[in-house]
Amino acid sequence: MIRTGPGAFTLRGTSERARRGSLELAHGIVETPSFMPVGTVATVKGLTPRDLREIGSQIVLANTYHLWLRPGGDTIAAAGGLHRFMAWDRPILTDSGGFQVFSLESQRKLDDDGVTFRSHIDGSTHRFTPENVVAFEERLGVDIAMMLDVCTKLPAPDGAIEDAVRRTTDWARRGTAAWTRGATALFGIVQGGLDERLRERSASELVPLDLPGYAIGGLSVGETREEMARFTRFTAERLPVDKPRYLMGVGTVRDLLVAVDAGVDLFDCVYPTRSGRHGRALLHDGSEINIRNATYTRDMAPLDPACSCDVCLTYERAYLSHLFRAGELLGMRLLSYHNVFVLHDVMAQARAAIERDAWPAFRQEIEARNA
Amino acid sequence: MIRTGPGAFTLRGTSERARRGSLELAHGIVETPSFMPVGTVATVKGLTPRDLREIGSQIVLANTYHLWLRPGGDTIAAAGGLHRFMAWDRPILTDSGGFQVFSLESQRKLDDDGVTFRSHIDGSTHRFTPENVVAFEERLGVDIAMMLDVCTKLPAPDGAIEDAVRRTTDWARRGTAAWTRGATALFGIVQGGLDERLRERSASELVPLDLPGYAIGGLSVGETREEMARFTRFTAERLPVDKPRYLMGVGTVRDLLVAVDAGVDLFDCVYPTRSGRHGRALLHDGSEINIRNATYTRDMAPLDPACSCDVCLTYERAYLSHLFRAGELLGMRLLSYHNVFVLHDVMAQARAAIERDAWPAFRQEIEARNA
Repeated sequence: MIRTGPGAFTLRGTSERARRGSLELAHGIVETPSFMPVGTVATVKGLTPRDLREIGSQIVLANTYHLWLRPGGDTIAAAGGLHRFMAWDRPILTDSGGFQVFSLESQRKLDDDGVTFRSHIDGSTHRFTPENVVAFEERLGVDIAMMLDVCTKLPAPDGAIEDAVRRTTDWARRGTAAWTRGATALFGIVQGGLDERLRERSASELVPLDLPGYAIGGLSVGETREEMARFTRFTAERLPVDKPRYLMGVGTVRDLLVAVDAGVDLFDCVYPTRSGRHGRALLHDGSEINIRNATYTRDMAPLDPACSCDVCLTYERAYLSHLFRAGELLGMRLLSYHNVFVLHDVMAQARAAIERDAWPAFRQEIEARNA
Repeated sequence: MIRTGPGAFTLRGTSERARRGSLELAHGIVETPSFMPVGTVATVKGLTPRDLREIGSQIVLANTYHLWLRPGGDTIAAAGGLHRFMAWDRPILTDSGGFQVFSLESQRKLDDDGVTFRSHIDGSTHRFTPENVVAFEERLGVDIAMMLDVCTKLPAPDGAIEDAVRRTTDWARRGTAAWTRGATALFGIVQGGLDERLRERSASELVPLDLPGYAIGGLSVGETREEMARFTRFTAERLPVDKPRYLMGVGTVRDLLVAVDAGVDLFDCVYPTRSGRHGRALLHDGSEINIRNATYTRDMAPLDPACSCDVCLTYERAYLSHLFRAGELLGMRLLSYHNVFVLHDVMAQARAAIERDAWPAFRQEIEARNA
C-alpha cells in the first residue's frame, strides 16, 4: 500500500543499491540517507537545537529508557511533549529502550510478556512491555517510535538468538496492535544476529505487519566490519523497497558509506559526540585524529582542512588542543559540533552523488583518500 | 593630559557618583559601566566568541598566570596573538598574574625584584617581574594589560599590607618604564587592604604615573559588603576623574550596583560562569536560584521571567533542572550564557539610567524588588 502523511517514504532515486529518499514526518521531511545525532536524555550532549539546525540535523534520537526513568513521562507531558521540552521543532525518533535494558544484564529479567529491570539511577524496579513502550513514545509525541525488541549480545548461547527473534516478532505484533497515534510512525526492528536463516525469518515475520519503516538491529555490536556489511546488505534486501531502512548504532564516515552502499537510509550513533568529548575528531576523508596528541599543540591548520563548519572556519588545531589539555568544556562542545557536522555533510554529499547516479565513484573517492 | 587613541576614556555623563563613559581600545570601544566575563585560559568557560557577542560582551578578561604556563607565549605568538588564538576580535584585558601567584601561598617566594613560583600544573619553577609580565602581555597583543602587583590576604600580619603597597608602587614604576606598546593600555592597581591611610598612599603614589586606567585591587576577597562598598568608594574618590576605574573580582547584580554607585566603570568575576556551571542562576532582580532544587523539576516558567536572553526565550526551568539532574554539559553552558547575559543587561540598563540622570531610582528599584 502507498502510505501518505506522516511516515510516507518517497524513493527519489537509486545508484546501485544506494537510495535517495524523502521521509515525511509530523515535524518535517527527512531527506535520506541521513545521520541522526543521539540526544540520549533529551539533549545532544553539549549542543543546542540551534547548533543542530545550523549543522544540518534533520532529526534527532532520544532514549525511551533514559527518559522513562528521568524526568519521566509526566514531566515531559506537562511540558507539552518532548519537542517542546527540549525545544527542538524538527522530527524526533525514540528508541524503544530495548537495547539499554538488555545491556543491563544482571539487572533485568525477561519473560514472554515483557522485561523487568532496575533503574541504574536509583535501583527502583520498572517494567517494559510492547504496549506500554508504544504508549510512552506516543505520549512524548515523537515522529518515529521504535518497537520494543529483544537484543542479544554476540556471541550468544544456542537458541538465544532464535528466542530473541521469536519474542521480537511477538512483541512487534502486540506493539502494532497497541499503536494508536497517526502522527507517530512505528518502526519494527529486525533481529537475528549473524545467522542468515534467523535474519530471513525475522524480516519475513515483520514485513507483513506493513509498518512505516524497519530497523536493522543487533549489528554494530562488536562484529567485524565485513560481517556488519554482509548482514546489513542481507537484511536490507529482505525489507520493502518503499519503506525507510534504519541501521542502528552506526556513526563513522566509513561505516556510513558501507551502510548507504547496502541500501540503508537512516543511521544513529553516540560516536561523533562521545568521541568529540574525548578529543577525537572525525575528518571528511574518513580518517580520525586525536587533538590531544602533542603534534597539534602548535598546529595552525583547521581541525579538518576539508570542512566548512563554524569550528573549522573559526579555530586552529593549536587552540582546540589547548582547550583539551586545559580540560575546558568548550573543547568538548566544539569537537562534538564538528563531528556531527562531518557526518551530516558526508550524507549531504552522498545524497547529491546518488541523485546524479554517481554513488560508486563517490564512495571509492573517499575510501581511496583514506587508503 | 587628555589621552587620545587606545586607552582614551570619555566621561559622557554622571548621575550622583555613577559614571557613564566610553573607553577607546585597540579592538573597539567599551561602553561603561561594563562587566567583563572571565576567560581564564583563553576561553570563557563553555561559551564561544559568537555567544559572547550575542549576549553583549564588549571585552573579556584572560589570565596571565594561566596563559604563561599553558599554552605559553610562544604558542600564542605563533597563532598571531591572543585575539586570533581564541578567535575573539573585541578587546581583551589580561590580569597580571599577581592575584593567582599570591593565592599559591606555599608555592611562591616574594622578593623586592619579583616573585618566584611553582606551576600548579607540573611543579616547574617560574618567575614574574614587573618587566617580564608587561612584556608577556604586550606579546599577547591585549588591549589592557594589568601591572604586576602584590596582593595580601586579609586579615594580614602587621606591616604586610604596607609592604605590599610599597612593592606595588615600586613595581608599577618599573612596569611603566618597561611599557612599550601603544596599542596596549597599561593599568595600575591600587592596594592597601581595609586601611584608609594605605589606600590613600597607594592611590597617591600611582596616580602621578598618569596611566590610562586604574584598578581597585585587594577587595572582594572576603570582607563584608559594607567594607567593600566603603573602600571602593574611598579608593574611587582618589582616582582621576578622566580615567577608567576597574574593581577587580565583582560579579553579582547587587555588588555591581554598589560598585557603579561608588563611581566604578569596569568589573570582572568568575562568579556568573562558575555559579552557572553549578546550577546557580542570577536573576535580573538581584536574587539567585539553584535550578537543582526539587521545586523546579516541573516548573514551566523561564529561568528568569525578566530576562530576554536566548536561554530564557527557549527553555523552561523544568528542562534546565533535568539537564543538571542528569549531569548534562548543556546545562552548564546554558546557565553560564544566561548569567553573563544578566550582568551585561543590568549594566546596559545602568548605562541608560545614568544617561538620563536616573541612577538612584534605578538602583533603588532593583534593590526594592529584592528586599
